[in-house]
Amino acid sequence: MNTAAVYHRADRSMAYAVAKDQMQIRIKTAKNDVSQVKLIHGDPYDWSKEKWNKHEKSMNYKGSDQLHDYWEVHIEPPYHRLRYGFILSNKKQTVFYGEKSFHQQAPEDIGEYFCLPYMNQSDIFTSPKWVHDTVWYQIFPERFANGDSSLNPPGTIPWAIEEPKRDSFFGGDLQGVIDHLDYLQDLGITGIYFTPLFEASSNHKYDTIDYFEIDQHFGDKEKLKELIRECKKRNIRVMLDAVFNHSGFFFPPFQDVLEKGENSRYKDWFHIWDFPVQTTPEPNYDTFAFTYMMPKLNTEHPEVKNYLLEAARYWAREFEIDGWRLDVANEVDHAFWREFREEVKKINPDLYILGEVWHDSIPWLRGDQFDAVMNYPFTTNALQLIAKRTISVQTFIENMTRVQYMYPEPVNKAAFNLIGSHDTPRILTECGNNQQRVKQILTVLLTYYGTPCIYYGDEVGLTGGMDPGCRKCMEWNEENQDQDVLNYTKKLISLRKNEPLLANDGDLSFYHISENSLVMKRESHDEAVLILINLSDKKDTLKIPYRVNKRKTIDLMTEEAHKWKKGKIKLQPQEIKMIKIF
Amino acid sequence: MNTAAVYHRADRSMAYAVAKDQMQIRIKTAKNDVSQVKLIHGDPYDWSKEKWNKHEKSMNYKGSDQLHDYWEVHIEPPYHRLRYGFILSNKKQTVFYGEKSFHQQAPEDIGEYFCLPYMNQSDIFTSPKWVHDTVWYQIFPERFANGDSSLNPPGTIPWAIEEPKRDSFFGGDLQGVIDHLDYLQDLGITGIYFTPLFEASSNHKYDTIDYFEIDQHFGDKEKLKELIRECKKRNIRVMLDAVFNHSGFFFPPFQDVLEKGENSRYKDWFHIWDFPVQTTPEPNYDTFAFTYMMPKLNTEHPEVKNYLLEAARYWAREFEIDGWRLDVANEVDHAFWREFREEVKKINPDLYILGEVWHDSIPWLRGDQFDAVMNYPFTTNALQLIAKRTISVQTFIENMTRVQYMYPEPVNKAAFNLIGSHDTPRILTECGNNQQRVKQILTVLLTYYGTPCIYYGDEVGLTGGMDPGCRKCMEWNEENQDQDVLNYTKKLISLRKNEPLLANDGDLSFYHISENSLVMKRESHDEAVLILINLSDKKDTLKIPYRVNKRKTIDLMTEEAHKWKKGKIKLQPQEIKMIKIF
Repeated sequence: MNTAAVYHRADRSMAYAVAKDQMQIRIKTAKNDVSQVKLIHGDPYDWSKEKWNKHEKSMNYKGSDQLHDYWEVHIEPPYHRLRYGFILSNKKQTVFYGEKSFHQQAPEDIGEYFCLPYMNQSDIFTSPKWVHDTVWYQIFPERFANGDSSLNPPGTIPWAIEEPKRDSFFGGDLQGVIDHLDYLQDLGITGIYFTPLFEASSNHKYDTIDYFEIDQHFGDKEKLKELIRECKKRNIRVMLDAVFNHSGFFFPPFQDVLEKGENSRYKDWFHIWDFPVQTTPEPNYDTFAFTYMMPKLNTEHPEVKNYLLEAARYWAREFEIDGWRLDVANEVDHAFWREFREEVKKINPDLYILGEVWHDSIPWLRGDQFDAVMNYPFTTNALQLIAKRTISVQTFIENMTRVQYMYPEPVNKAAFNLIGSHDTPRILTECGNNQQRVKQILTVLLTYYGTPCIYYGDEVGLTGGMDPGCRKCMEWNEENQDQDVLNYTKKLISLRKNEPLLANDGDLSFYHISENSLVMKRESHDEAVLILINLSDKKDTLKIPYRVNKRKTIDLMTEEAHKWKKGKIKLQPQEIKMIKIF
Repeated sequence: MNTAAVYHRADRSMAYAVAKDQMQIRIKTAKNDVSQVKLIHGDPYDWSKEKWNKHEKSMNYKGSDQLHDYWEVHIEPPYHRLRYGFILSNKKQTVFYGEKSFHQQAPEDIGEYFCLPYMNQSDIFTSPKWVHDTVWYQIFPERFANGDSSLNPPGTIPWAIEEPKRDSFFGGDLQGVIDHLDYLQDLGITGIYFTPLFEASSNHKYDTIDYFEIDQHFGDKEKLKELIRECKKRNIRVMLDAVFNHSGFFFPPFQDVLEKGENSRYKDWFHIWDFPVQTTPEPNYDTFAFTYMMPKLNTEHPEVKNYLLEAARYWAREFEIDGWRLDVANEVDHAFWREFREEVKKINPDLYILGEVWHDSIPWLRGDQFDAVMNYPFTTNALQLIAKRTISVQTFIENMTRVQYMYPEPVNKAAFNLIGSHDTPRILTECGNNQQRVKQILTVLLTYYGTPCIYYGDEVGLTGGMDPGCRKCMEWNEENQDQDVLNYTKKLISLRKNEPLLANDGDLSFYHISENSLVMKRESHDEAVLILINLSDKKDTLKIPYRVNKRKTIDLMTEEAHKWKKGKIKLQPQEIKMIKIF
């Protein structure tokens, strides 16, 4: 057995409470190396050998990535505490694996076992329940709709008359969003994620000048209140974007430092290396990336902390927003985010906290900071599989399985899944203008666990490369909208809303039974939905290793009964099917 | 290459900042599998290929446990942020290992690399500097000295006239400690860790009745102030023991619940399953272990939190204590400990926070909770190697190397090392009354990195098994004290205080060059101290793989120059040597 490849630690994604009376324990072993894993466990204070020997529980094989197999088990210790080890077997040997080492047999010494000392409620990762059933829609306000031309910034270009440049203004505003809420309601989405609305100089508003004011070109506070009121009427949640890592260049405290240097009372609000402050040839202060226009805020400074936390509280308290999306969240200190969470959850325990982190996010997902991060691994892999066809079905499954077991299950269920944003090329462009592939990728998005987000305009076939290409004006002329994709998107959203297995009730797993087709299963108890996508230009016939005989089966797309032929199902080239088995 | 056994994650013990401008990065590989590891790294926002290719840095092989080799490197990224991967080589192949997978070559896609996004000062693990140079002495107050017989509890037994039973009282008190501070100063210790002093009914006082009162049999607040004042004069720090996981049975709020049941205003201060509350045959409330006399406190309840945190603040503020040792710390919620840390560090940033955790302690050692835990893995392995001779030198080295790489280096440097306590048999007893083995184990304790603690009486040869045996009255009759061990302990303490390499300036490593002798090295820059302990009854001749030729060498025990014979050193049976090389 490849014991050096066995990994478990009583922490993070490997051992955690999902409720006060339920723990989940996972272990990884080298791929195809171990045939059986059993958990051997007992109460830390009831370690008498007699009782001890009785407690063994088989662990379930859950999936594999390129190098490892993953095993999982649920356990409900009566006193909310547990000592445990693992019995690993393959044809050649059986070994015990505990906190200190491997042994030929399960040792009696309790110190050899892993420990979950006590499941305290406050340490359990939780996220707002409503998030699990939400379908998000991301709006880049400058480009969604111009509803009030009196607010147009100088030099505003008539709507969509030309391709956007980096510094174009088209006059999109809050009134524009209000004007199209019926459209969004009809589409079926139940949450809007707005990129920043606060006063800033750029068109993207990621360079905040005043964290307490709505940008004048978007509207004002009354308009935002009206928008939120109208959203609530339609059961649409609202999430705003907080840029707390850095301020804009024209943020008054930074201007004060530029002007007064060391004598500025704001000199410690930033990370200034030395005085006088310079912006060229290179800034002598910490910035976002190397952008001198975006000085990094010193979020450890009590005044800065107070200022930003009050902004966080203000919009939550006065505008009853439902979520905060946190820009460049990974570069701000954890201590700040812990306080942030405490403060906003005090105002609204149901407020969703979503961090922008592109890499391994476990340090932020321990329950004390974020509810979720933007699921870019999902984005990347879904694009590579479907849009770019650069990875195989097997690789997709392995990559996503790996990501799945990097985080606790409750974290995965709150993940913010996206297939594009204002920072990536348009999905239709990524798909080489292949409409069917767009449908396929939307299908994966809307049937995956986590909370899905559609980038404005993807549903009507907007195209474009990286910024500024992906920030084109929304297409409101129905004749120019891709009605086929739009209707398909509506159908998917409606299916997800009506089928709990597709939201977060269903466990997610994959069947690697064909290199032409992706097969995902959402399952709970004895019901399942199969999502089948033929990625190839050939027909594919799939035999699903799931009990289908004599069971009621419905094609969710057509709402007609599905008939299995010798337990097999046929897919036309590029076809998408969704089959529910009762 | 055994790629499945390679492990790194950009977090915890594997990647961390030790200062705002310095990161430490580690990786583990299968034992004897990889011959070279290089870190390949760059700035996350300066990823142009030209610059990128230049940044490679060799990692140092640091040691091995049973299954893995450990590698480490220090790196100082100019902008406090880093993307990185690893180039692993052995005779057969060279591979790249990044956040997403292995590749044949270092990929260009930044997403394939691990990320340390920004080193914020407040996220860096720090512990009080003074701890690194402190030598602790643990006092169990009921058994250290009876200085005021007027405080004797009813039924007090004359000092040491008989072996203690579980419920014996001998009248030890604070005055007794004051009376013997000269002894402690002469011994050389610089910190006292007191097991609980607060009002409680038992002799061990782990069943608190009032967290704001000194137990009447120990003295009163004035007496404690006097004791602390006297300690400060002698540069002796004082750490108290906080039992916040559970209260005593006679804690008035619990008594109120017993009396008034569901109508008690304290009913939510504990974890009561249902009413009426019962204590027999089994308690229907959460307890410490299964002890109905120790009801678990609900540390998530705001009132309980306030009460306990105020106790923590009170003794820190009013008595200027230097440390809090936290009993059964692992069973209290992390959220409570985070708040605890914030509160006490506000009063005294230099206050040492020491948790009692017997198992893997990484969840508490992220910088937001404890400064250290009781280093029981050290205890266990030192005892097994020296006292019980149940493990080999190789196993000791492997086990301690494993522990070393379970935690970041700054955590190891603050670890509270002990070889015995009120919860374990006496070290002399563990050593089968072999005085030389006691000296050997004391040598390892006082030359190991971390902060060492001597359990009262071990230095004069007290014996005893588990509680109550290990809680005998301190021996004050010099004729009955083991003066040899006492003087040897003084010598060790004095060496540690005068030789910074032996405190925390020296890196720690092992030489496995003999199965008879343990060889440890404490090294910094170009100086080292070798600690050599012949554990066998035979002579041992050791050739140290360290440059000793033509270098000044001193035997720290004898203070005489040491002469190498062909680079070799001879140890008599059971001999202990400490050699400094300049």
